[in-house]
Amino acid sequence: MGEFEFIAEYLAKIAGPEALDLKDDVAIWTPPSGLDVVISMDTLVEGVHFSAGQFDGALAQKLMRVNVSDVIAKGADPVGYFMSLCLPANLSSSTLEDFCTGLERDQNIYGMKLWGGDTTCSDGVCVLSATIIATIPSRKAVRRSGARPGDIMCVSGTIGDAYLGLQIVQGKLDEETHWLQCYHVPNPPYALRGQIRTYASAALDISDGLIADALHMAKASNVGIEIDLNAVPVSEATRTWLSAQSDEIQARILLVTGGDDYQVLLAIPPDQYKQAVRDMPITKIGTVTQGMGVVCHDGQGNEIAVQKPGYTHF
Amino acid sequence: MGEFEFIAEYLAKIAGPEALDLKDDVAIWTPPSGLDVVISMDTLVEGVHFSAGQFDGALAQKLMRVNVSDVIAKGADPVGYFMSLCLPANLSSSTLEDFCTGLERDQNIYGMKLWGGDTTCSDGVCVLSATIIATIPSRKAVRRSGARPGDIMCVSGTIGDAYLGLQIVQGKLDEETHWLQCYHVPNPPYALRGQIRTYASAALDISDGLIADALHMAKASNVGIEIDLNAVPVSEATRTWLSAQSDEIQARILLVTGGDDYQVLLAIPPDQYKQAVRDMPITKIGTVTQGMGVVCHDGQGNEIAVQKPGYTHF
Repeated sequence: MGEFEFIAEYLAKIAGPEALDLKDDVAIWTPPSGLDVVISMDTLVEGVHFSAGQFDGALAQKLMRVNVSDVIAKGADPVGYFMSLCLPANLSSSTLEDFCTGLERDQNIYGMKLWGGDTTCSDGVCVLSATIIATIPSRKAVRRSGARPGDIMCVSGTIGDAYLGLQIVQGKLDEETHWLQCYHVPNPPYALRGQIRTYASAALDISDGLIADALHMAKASNVGIEIDLNAVPVSEATRTWLSAQSDEIQARILLVTGGDDYQVLLAIPPDQYKQAVRDMPITKIGTVTQGMGVVCHDGQGNEIAVQKPGYTHF
Repeated sequence: MGEFEFIAEYLAKIAGPEALDLKDDVAIWTPPSGLDVVISMDTLVEGVHFSAGQFDGALAQKLMRVNVSDVIAKGADPVGYFMSLCLPANLSSSTLEDFCTGLERDQNIYGMKLWGGDTTCSDGVCVLSATIIATIPSRKAVRRSGARPGDIMCVSGTIGDAYLGLQIVQGKLDEETHWLQCYHVPNPPYALRGQIRTYASAALDISDGLIADALHMAKASNVGIEIDLNAVPVSEATRTWLSAQSDEIQARILLVTGGDDYQVLLAIPPDQYKQAVRDMPITKIGTVTQGMGVVCHDGQGNEIAVQKPGYTHF
C-alpha cells in the first residue's frame, strides 16, 4: 500500500470536516467564540517510548493518550489532532489498519477527529508525533504556575503502574496484565477535565515522573511542594508488590520517579478542597509551601532524599 | 547540555507569550474573532529530506519554510508553531545554538513565534516535525478544491532549482550556489499571501513535484489540468543547464517532477487573471479543463507522457 492510498483508504475515514478530506495540506477551523485554544505536541520514539518493532492499535492509543493527557490536565476539551507518522518501510495493510482502528477507538472516547498531518518513511526508528487542539472557556485553562502556599497537592488515579509495566517489557519483572496495560495504553482522567478547571489552581500531567513533574510545578509557581511518599496512591497489584520489597520506601521512590503515569497532579486551594474531593476521585499527597523545590517525606516527618526525580531525554 | 537546559536556555528565548515560557506542556491562545485558523504539520526526516549528519541553522530554516509554505499557499498569515525534535545524542551546545539562530531568523521573517513542542532523543535518524498555526479572514482560505474549467494555471517563482540542488547534494552535478541554496533553504512566496487569497480559486504549495501537485489539485477539484512544459518558469542557471541537455523536454520533465520547490501553484479565474498578473509576480503555465488528471504538452500541441509525477514516501 502506498502513502496516498493509506491516507485515502484509512486516514480519510477518521478525519473531521476541518481536514478537507485530507486532500489539502492543511485543516481549516473556525474556533467557536468565547473559547481559548489549548494546544500541545508530544512525540513517541521507537525504543524510547515503546518497544522496537511495536506498531499496532495500542501504540495508536498511546499516541492519542499522551497528547490528550496534556490538554485535559489543563481542563480543556480535545477537538482535533494532527499526526506525523515516520514509519518503517513495508508495513503490511493489516498492520496499518490495526493502527487506524486504535486511532478511531480513541477518537470516539475523547470526542476528537483527525485534522491532518504528514506521513513519511525512513529506515531508522519509527517516530510518531501528534499535535492536539483543545478548547476551554476563556481564561479557564489551568496552568502549572498557579500553585500557592497552603494549597493541597493531589493526584488522580494511581501512580507507578506504568513503571512496573515497563519493567515487564524490559524482562525484569513477571507478567502482570494491569501494569502492562497501564504502560501500553495509559488512561488519563478525561472525565475529570471539568472538575480540574473548576477546582485546581495549578495542574499538569505526570509523564516524566511524579517528583520530576512536581518539580516542574514548583519552579513554574515559584513555591515549594512537600510530598508524603506513603500517601501516594497505588493499585492493588502495586500494593502487593510493595509489601514484598525489602525496602518499601526505596521501592516507592522508584514508583514516583518512573513516569508514564499520565495521571494529573493538581494543587487545590484549601477553601476549595472539601468540595473538590466530594466532586472528583483524587488523593491528597502533600501541600504547597513557601519553600523551593520538592521535599519528600515518609509521613512520620522523616525527609527522604530522591536522587533522580524522573526521566530526561538528554 | 540537558533537555531542560536546552529548552530554558535557547528555546524559551524565541517563544511567544502563548507558550507560557515553555514551562507548561501546552500553549494557550485566544484566537482573534472573525478569523479562521489554518493549521498544517510537516516533517523532515534525516536521509530523506536532508543529508545524514546535517543539523544546522539552514535545517531549522528548511523546517520553518516547508511549514510556512503550506499555509501561505492558502493565503493565511503564520502566527505560531510547535516543534518536535527527535535528536541524535551528544549534539554540542554550539550546534544547538546554530539551529536556534536559524529558527529565530525565520520567525522574524515570517512574523511568528515558537509556541511549544517536544524534545526527544534517539539513536536512530533525526526526525523534525512542526505544526504551524496561521490565521485568515473568515472563509477566505484558498483550498485545493476550487479550480474550475477555464481557470488559468500559474506558478510563483521558478521550478526545478531544488531538484538540481539535490543532484549536487547527491554528487551527480557540479556545485552551483543558487540551486544548493534553493534546496537547503527554500523561499516560499510569503509576500504573496494577500494576493493569493484575493485572486486564487485554488492553490497549493509544490513539494512533491509540480506535476504531482497539479494532480492533487485536479483530483480535489474534479477537473483536468493542462500544462505547457515549455512555459514553466526556470532560473537563469537552470536555463543554461537545460540548453546543454541532449533532450530538453525530458530534462524539463525532471524539473517538474523533482519537487521541493515550495512555490505556489494556483488557479485563477479568467476574469481575475489580468488584474492578478499586474498585482503579483506569477507565470501562466496552463489551463484548467473539463477533463481528468494532468496532461502535459510541449507548447506546440504535442502531448508529453510523464511516467512518475513526483515523490511518494512508500
